Amino acid sequence: MEIKQAIILRSDLKMGKGKLVAQAAHASLMSYFRSEKADKAIASEWLETGEKKIVLKVQSEEELKGLFLECESRHMPCALVVDAGLTQLEPGTVTALGIGPWKSDEIDALTHDLKLL
Amino acid sequence: MEIKQAIILRSDLKMGKGKLVAQAAHASLMSYFRSEKADKAIASEWLETGEKKIVLKVQSEEELKGLFLECESRHMPCALVVDAGLTQLEPGTVTALGIGPWKSDEIDALTHDLKLL
Repeated sequence: MEIKQAIILRSDLKMGKGKLVAQAAHASLMSYFRSEKADKAIASEWLETGEKKIVLKVQSEEELKGLFLECESRHMPCALVVDAGLTQLEPGTVTALGIGPWKSDEIDALTHDLKLL
Repeated sequence: MEIKQAIILRSDLKMGKGKLVAQAAHASLMSYFRSEKADKAIASEWLETGEKKIVLKVQSEEELKGLFLECESRHMPCALVVDAGLTQLEPGTVTALGIGPWKSDEIDALTHDLKLL
C-alpha cells in the first residue's frame, strides 16, 4: 500500500515564494500530527519510506474548504491552514490544506482533478 | 525567548514551485523531529505559539553545507535535505536545510546575512 501526503495551495492569492513555502510547511507538519494520531503505523511507514509528497493547487478558498470538508467526512487526517495575517494577507485567510500521510488511493480519489502547483 | 524555525533553500537549482515546496516541507518536518529530540520544551512551545517560520535562500550547495556544519558544531537541531533525484534533480542533490525550532537569536546569529526567499 502506497502512502503519501498531499499539500494543496491556493494559487489565487498573491503570496510570495517564501510565504507559499511557509504555508505549505505549516500544512505538512499539522497534517502529519493528525495522521500520527489517526494511525501511527501509517505515519511511521511514511517517514521510513521517503515521505512521498505531492503538491497541488486550487484556485479559490471555496475549493480548498470543500476539499477539507470532504476529507473530514471521509475520516482522512488533514489540516487547514488559516493565516494569522501579519504579512501579505488578511487575517483569517485560508491558504493551504495538508492531507495525510494517508493511503495514496484515498488521497487520489479526492484530488485526481487537481493540477500540480 | 522567541523561538522560530528557519527553512533555507538553494536558489541556484532549477526547481519548479511544487518541487521547492516539497523540499521545504521535508526540511521543516525533519528539523522539527531533531528539535523535539534535542529539547522537547522548545519544540512544544513553538507549536503552541504559532510556529514562527522564516524562509531564506542561499546560492550554492557549498553555502548550504557550510551552514549545516556550522549548526551542528553549535549543537543546534537541524536537517539537511538530500533529494532522491527521481524528478528534476540529480540523485544526491542537496536542496534545503531546516534549522530548529530553536532560539531565534541563535538562528539569527547564523543566518543574518541571508536573504529572504
